[in-house]
Amino acid sequence: MPYPYKKMTVKDFDRIREITDPSRVLTGDDIPNEYFRDEMPEYGIFKPELYVEVLNKEEVSSIMKYAWENNIPVTCRGGGTGLAGGATCKYGGIMLSVMKMNRIFPVDHKNMTVTCEPGALILDVKAAAAKEGLFYPPDSSEKTASIGGNVITNAGGMQAVRYGLTRDFVRCIEAVMPDGSIMNFSSNVVKNTTGYDIKDLIIGSEGTLCILTQVTLKLMPAPNCTCTLVMPFDSLEECADMVPHVLELPFVPTAIEFLERELIEIVERTLHKMLPVPGGDAVLIVMYDASSQTELDSAVNLCAESAIKHGALDVFIADTPERAASVWSVRAAILEGMKADSVSQEECDVVVPRSRIAEYVKAAKRIALSHGLRAEPCGHCGDGNIHTELLRGADMSDEEWQTATHECLTELYALSKSLGGQLSGEHGIGNGRIDYLVDFVGERMIDLYKSIKLAFDEKLILNPGKVIEFNP
Amino acid sequence: MPYPYKKMTVKDFDRIREITDPSRVLTGDDIPNEYFRDEMPEYGIFKPELYVEVLNKEEVSSIMKYAWENNIPVTCRGGGTGLAGGATCKYGGIMLSVMKMNRIFPVDHKNMTVTCEPGALILDVKAAAAKEGLFYPPDSSEKTASIGGNVITNAGGMQAVRYGLTRDFVRCIEAVMPDGSIMNFSSNVVKNTTGYDIKDLIIGSEGTLCILTQVTLKLMPAPNCTCTLVMPFDSLEECADMVPHVLELPFVPTAIEFLERELIEIVERTLHKMLPVPGGDAVLIVMYDASSQTELDSAVNLCAESAIKHGALDVFIADTPERAASVWSVRAAILEGMKADSVSQEECDVVVPRSRIAEYVKAAKRIALSHGLRAEPCGHCGDGNIHTELLRGADMSDEEWQTATHECLTELYALSKSLGGQLSGEHGIGNGRIDYLVDFVGERMIDLYKSIKLAFDEKLILNPGKVIEFNP
Repeated sequence: MPYPYKKMTVKDFDRIREITDPSRVLTGDDIPNEYFRDEMPEYGIFKPELYVEVLNKEEVSSIMKYAWENNIPVTCRGGGTGLAGGATCKYGGIMLSVMKMNRIFPVDHKNMTVTCEPGALILDVKAAAAKEGLFYPPDSSEKTASIGGNVITNAGGMQAVRYGLTRDFVRCIEAVMPDGSIMNFSSNVVKNTTGYDIKDLIIGSEGTLCILTQVTLKLMPAPNCTCTLVMPFDSLEECADMVPHVLELPFVPTAIEFLERELIEIVERTLHKMLPVPGGDAVLIVMYDASSQTELDSAVNLCAESAIKHGALDVFIADTPERAASVWSVRAAILEGMKADSVSQEECDVVVPRSRIAEYVKAAKRIALSHGLRAEPCGHCGDGNIHTELLRGADMSDEEWQTATHECLTELYALSKSLGGQLSGEHGIGNGRIDYLVDFVGERMIDLYKSIKLAFDEKLILNPGKVIEFNP
Repeated sequence: MPYPYKKMTVKDFDRIREITDPSRVLTGDDIPNEYFRDEMPEYGIFKPELYVEVLNKEEVSSIMKYAWENNIPVTCRGGGTGLAGGATCKYGGIMLSVMKMNRIFPVDHKNMTVTCEPGALILDVKAAAAKEGLFYPPDSSEKTASIGGNVITNAGGMQAVRYGLTRDFVRCIEAVMPDGSIMNFSSNVVKNTTGYDIKDLIIGSEGTLCILTQVTLKLMPAPNCTCTLVMPFDSLEECADMVPHVLELPFVPTAIEFLERELIEIVERTLHKMLPVPGGDAVLIVMYDASSQTELDSAVNLCAESAIKHGALDVFIADTPERAASVWSVRAAILEGMKADSVSQEECDVVVPRSRIAEYVKAAKRIALSHGLRAEPCGHCGDGNIHTELLRGADMSDEEWQTATHECLTELYALSKSLGGQLSGEHGIGNGRIDYLVDFVGERMIDLYKSIKLAFDEKLILNPGKVIEFNP
């Protein structure tokens, strides 16, 4: 194990400037703070010794070869919109930004794919597909995230119910290994059983196994009409119990979200965005996309009928863009609402089997209260991924807040495990959840993670200290 | 590296009998030949020293612990319907059959899943889902394959165009590691970013990383109507060029197959099954499933219109079960027809980008002819997975046939690579394609495969010599 890593010298800086260009290299105090953190600074901000913006895979390869030979850690960074403290330099070294590698190549109609560089923004990838009448479905809420970041964290998002995760759209990956080798994992084919499926292992590996330099993504025909239903229920249990009924209908919905009334009221009170549906302790929001109005009407009618049969107090059908926007703007404002309603927040991203959602939410609130915290679970009812926001009480000291969140998270993860759930549904482990991982998956799994990390990176120079920690 | 492995003794036999039951253990010449081969005996048949049928994960774990401590190779076997020479004991040792572990647990409606043991047959898994009004889509042509075998080879099949591969339906895996540890990879959740995605690495690993003891599978609402279109074209190129047009229509087809007239004539001549559509050098067969007749009619009409616009000579719509059966029975009889039409066959399972199908087929035939062989490519046009059957000439000696197939396959794999394709689309590497793998993926990839194998199995006792070969 190579830790402690080499402390970089002026000679190292010069070598990186030679490989790239002095205009794309920053060192020491010249590196702005926002270049080495993500959207969860609470999970740690660690400064690199050198920051470099690369232009192509050859530069990435040369930098990695040099880092490999000289035992210098390298952390790759995309849009910096992660939520796990992943894109920060826990052991110093090089921060390598791929945001200038942002080309999107022409859509390949015959294969229905688009190839792009890792720094391309999700919104640009989606636009490039749409311009050609096609559709890139993965829809993480951060549209300024990079496609590289989405792939390396297997980003989810609300529309995963129908379309799946980022993983389901990645045809192939070009990547640079820690030793500088440039590799291709699969190619633009639909099936592949040639050797081990390393492509899928890389997806979601949070930058610890290799650096993406190009990805090819599957596209779909775009749906051309959409409708959203809002269904209030007397209780959270009834609301959650409706989910399997929705999923057994012949049409697969695009998104299924839930909101408790308490949370709706926070958004209405703090941001004055009103949900156009009164009543009910919990509200289920179901979106359908379709390729024809007939199909859409049929889906909406069947869902509305089923909801009434299963205890919905009402069914509000948002069948115009304006009505749908009034619903989804409330859903989108939740985080902002909670931020306006509390001094600090901590986030828990568990996923549980869909059958256990109500049970999880009830217990999560009880657990939070027992630590003097408010918990506001909300999220992706269609896939059991319940973002549980913990809100800090106004009168808590920093130490009280830290102790309370740590203890509360420990219990929430144990709760998720006892319900057959997982520690993280879509945000990943990064640095922020690493302390909770061993208790969750057990020592034998940690050993296997370590073996896999070593299979790619025996010098442990790539994004060290994320997902898996070797050093004491 | 532990090779050479321990030669098993009577003491070892007795220990396995103690762990399990003498009635489920066979040794030496008592082991029937069909217990240690798959459906491609051409790829090698290697006898185990001991054959055991296990009943549960505890038995698997105890056997693996013993094998691990004593350096005895273990090969796991499901239904034995593989096509890569995977389920055979290349280095002797133990053949472990999971076919008595075949329970299918009650369908979980709330999570829309079914959990089963690896020995459950695909047809029984499908029936269990259907009985509950649900649908397990993966449809490998071997219905007597086991679900464990399907998962560990990531089985594909014709309907992958719409529904995807076996991988897309595996929620979680319980498995025994080479050292005997019992592990769970993910759980019954829709999303998971907790640590590395080992579940997807295991899928398709051909029994070289761990032994499956339980899998949980995603189910879907069942479609309730279906229709098949048959469209003859003047040339293979026009037929293949139609595929992207079909895929850009709003409805995703379930299957897209192609047949060249030459192959249809073989089936008609040898088996007297007639395709009810005359004319055309190449025929495209497209199947749609839908949840309503309106949706189905709309899909069929749009596809038929597009076909006429893009050069189809005719569109035959098989809208009754009888008509559809007359079409699909010809497609299903291809292998049998080729067997009736030649003394021996060898199979190539490449996958190419959909845009390169026609190019591949033309070149493959040329290459085969140059080695004195007939090639009959056919298969999954919707995903570029072209099964290329090489037929032996009646007057070839064994040696001529072997030399010709080896040289021809080498060229076919190079052709696939040059077109951006892969060595195997759905049948896997096993023992049969291992000699071609290094040329295809390169030395650096082989090194990575080796590191991954070692991360799971540093003693190399699990299905040694398949996918990756360590010994000289």
